[in-house]
Order: sequence, then structure tokens, then C-alpha cells
Amino acid sequence: MPEIKKINHVAIVVEDIEESLGFWRDALGLPLSHIEQVPSQESAVAFLPVAGSEVELVQPTTEGSGIARYLEKRGAGMHHLCFEVDDIVGMLAQLQAKGIQLINEEPLTGSDGRKYAFVHPKSASGVLVELYQLT
Amino acid sequence: MPEIKKINHVAIVVEDIEESLGFWRDALGLPLSHIEQVPSQESAVAFLPVAGSEVELVQPTTEGSGIARYLEKRGAGMHHLCFEVDDIVGMLAQLQAKGIQLINEEPLTGSDGRKYAFVHPKSASGVLVELYQLT
Repeated sequence: MPEIKKINHVAIVVEDIEESLGFWRDALGLPLSHIEQVPSQESAVAFLPVAGSEVELVQPTTEGSGIARYLEKRGAGMHHLCFEVDDIVGMLAQLQAKGIQLINEEPLTGSDGRKYAFVHPKSASGVLVELYQLT
Repeated sequence: MPEIKKINHVAIVVEDIEESLGFWRDALGLPLSHIEQVPSQESAVAFLPVAGSEVELVQPTTEGSGIARYLEKRGAGMHHLCFEVDDIVGMLAQLQAKGIQLINEEPLTGSDGRKYAFVHPKSASGVLVELYQLT
């Protein structure tokens, strides 16, 4: 049986990473691991590790991308919740067998080799759920 | 220095806990610890532990409460993000010194003795952040 191992990260869409770091890093005290440009997602992402999970601050870097439209429509806030899973192909099959609507029926592969897929919020209490399988 | 220890939980506001468990428990496979009635919050909460953190499904049990109005206005989805902190009084003082707007300037005490307080989303990238200090 495929199994959820942990919360990998909570992604927060923000207007401006530097401004948001004033809260998450400077006031709350979370360490900033690094900031990464992610051209494929038309965004920049700040990674703040916390006990085996991460807070990710995602800033759109173009207009018109999905994440930019989300920010425009809903404002800054939590965007998606990502779980690490030990067998993403098995998990996606299990979800489909239960009638869960997926955004990605097959896992995508990130530049670092990790596999990931999104579950549709309609099937997940309004939450955009991401699944990661680390390599 | 007060320190964030981990993500304690991600709270998800839902229309109906039993229906939502069809995804979180039955399809995704997270264990259900228990369901608790929380009259002080006019809600019922399902607790699903995952690697030292929890997913909490929060269902309003009355009309007109803050959480019921949130659900009516924004629909189901992630509601707040809670961190465990080792010194909540110290953390609240640190946040105030940094100009962060708090909902609770003094920690509240739960029925189980834990201390908690909320940070205003205006100061936290649109995220309702809760802080817990376990006893």
C-alpha cells in the first residue's frame, strides 16, 4: 500500500518574497534555506525549512500564469499542501480507484528527478494537494 | 530566543467531515485519530496525524460563527497554519517588537492547558497563523 510519509511543504503565494521574509524569517525566525528561480512555473520560490517540512513562499514572476492569476483573484495566502509519498504511481492508482479527480494522472518529473502530481481541489475539500516522491 | 519547533497542524475548513474523510482517510490513507466536538469554536474537528504534524478537518456546527462565515464566503479549503513554539509569550513579544499585527496579544489557554494565539493574516502573507505552546 502506498503511504503518505509526511507534510513535505506548505506553499504560500505572495506578492513579494523580500517583503514576506520580513514576517516568516525576520519576525518568526524560520531559517531561509535559499531562493530559487523556477522559470517552468513562472515563479520564484523561497524555501524555509522547519523540522523536516518546509514553508515555501511563491512569487509569480510573470503576468498571466496560473499562480499569477490565483494571486490576483484570491490575494496572498496558502496555495497548496504537499505530502511526501513512498510510491506516487501506486498512490495515483489508489486515488483514481476511489474516484478522486486528479490534475495529473501520471506523475511529472522535476528538474531534480523527483516525481510529483496534483490532486484536484474538487476532490480534496477545496485544497490543492500535491504529492511528491523523492528519488 | 523563542523558536518555532515544527508545523503542528494545517487546518482545513470543510462542509462535512464524513464526506471529506472519503478523501483524506479513505483515499489518501491518513489515519483518523479522533473527532472532537469543540463547542467554544462552534465546530467539530477531525484529527489526522502525519509524521508529528496533523491535518485537521474543521466543520462549523452553527451558523454565524467566524468559521461558518469563512466557509460561506470562501468555500472549503485551508484555513490556518499552526506552528509549535517553545516560548509563546516570548514569541508574541518578538513579533510585536517587529511590528507584526496580532489577533491575540496575550496567549489564550485551551481546555487541555495548551497556550495558543493567532497572528493577523495582514502581517503574514495573507495566512492565518496560529502559535501553540504545548504544556
